[in-house]
Amino acid sequence: MSSVLSDSLGNSSRIAVLSGPTFAREVARGLPTAVVAASENAETAQRVATLFHSESLRVYRSSDVAGVELGGVVKNVIALAAGIVEGMGLGLNAQAALITRGLAEMKRLIESAGGSPLTVMGLSGLGDLLLTATGELSRNRCVGMALGKGAPLAEALKSVGQVAEGVRAAKQVTALAAEGKIEMPIALEVSRIIAGEITPAQASKNLLARALRDE
Amino acid sequence: MSSVLSDSLGNSSRIAVLSGPTFAREVARGLPTAVVAASENAETAQRVATLFHSESLRVYRSSDVAGVELGGVVKNVIALAAGIVEGMGLGLNAQAALITRGLAEMKRLIESAGGSPLTVMGLSGLGDLLLTATGELSRNRCVGMALGKGAPLAEALKSVGQVAEGVRAAKQVTALAAEGKIEMPIALEVSRIIAGEITPAQASKNLLARALRDE
Repeated sequence: MSSVLSDSLGNSSRIAVLSGPTFAREVARGLPTAVVAASENAETAQRVATLFHSESLRVYRSSDVAGVELGGVVKNVIALAAGIVEGMGLGLNAQAALITRGLAEMKRLIESAGGSPLTVMGLSGLGDLLLTATGELSRNRCVGMALGKGAPLAEALKSVGQVAEGVRAAKQVTALAAEGKIEMPIALEVSRIIAGEITPAQASKNLLARALRDE
Repeated sequence: MSSVLSDSLGNSSRIAVLSGPTFAREVARGLPTAVVAASENAETAQRVATLFHSESLRVYRSSDVAGVELGGVVKNVIALAAGIVEGMGLGLNAQAALITRGLAEMKRLIESAGGSPLTVMGLSGLGDLLLTATGELSRNRCVGMALGKGAPLAEALKSVGQVAEGVRAAKQVTALAAEGKIEMPIALEVSRIIAGEITPAQASKNLLARALRDE
């Protein structure tokens, strides 16, 4: 999105990206929330941080626009996967392992785009991923759960009744990964499930069949 | 623990540490679970991995004994903090931010002990942290929730009725951090709450009062 804006507006130094673990309902209620404002221009990041900062909303600064943006995209795909695991009844151990490996996929994609590993570990990476993949208010997780229980995509989307960005993002992320030859097996299996090419059970088998190796 | 064993047995190359996101109940039910086996000796790690590996239990290898062990200790302290946040009703955004910052504290401690940042991102670090800090079966999280609701420590422990390792670990981790001059504000506030020196509300205020800055 920042590339589109900067192409249209012609001045990327005035663009900032705001991201982080933020269920809107909680922000609206004034519950404590922390986000990151990223801009290639330090003054812009500072300006946005100062504008949004309040007693309940803490805004950290970053210069890693690509890393912050990509984290916000990939996390929806991993949240879909976490929902699928939950819908299949595979348990919390499996979910924790999946989210951990999912963050490793996010890290590879972000680094290949010139983003920083520190961003991956931060609020817009890990923070947002864990909210979206484990929080009850997460739409992507809910759609994943319905898929994991065997619902076709159209039905899963209908049951949630809200936009689940991960459904479109899975395809885009998989395309990006293929282009850059980046290993993202979880995103790939999610996109196959969404395309109706395989069942969640087959995807889970594919992921578990990967060979014993160093972490 | 590995240092104690290696002092007693006199041969650290035969010691391996097994850790990861593993609620025992789920492992016993044969639900898919992934762990890491760490040893300074690659053959020992491989041997343990092969012995434990099964269709439902995937064992990855690591050479980072200190990192794997410390992750398993610190995660209990952060899980207590996550429970406290939940008990106080601060919401999921706050919990996600807290766990993210908690992982950064774990990273600093592990790196100061010669462990690897990759271990922090892995199953015994992030994976175990997120299971323990968000999973319903987590004892440390339950004790934290009781503390967050205002129960004194003795009562919180009694209500859970099981060992919560984070209570002892908070003191030990804080001592380690002080010794190495490592910034671990969350662990510090948890140890103060446990010692009865401050209330959860004061601790939360202290953490939120930290200045606006780069992530």
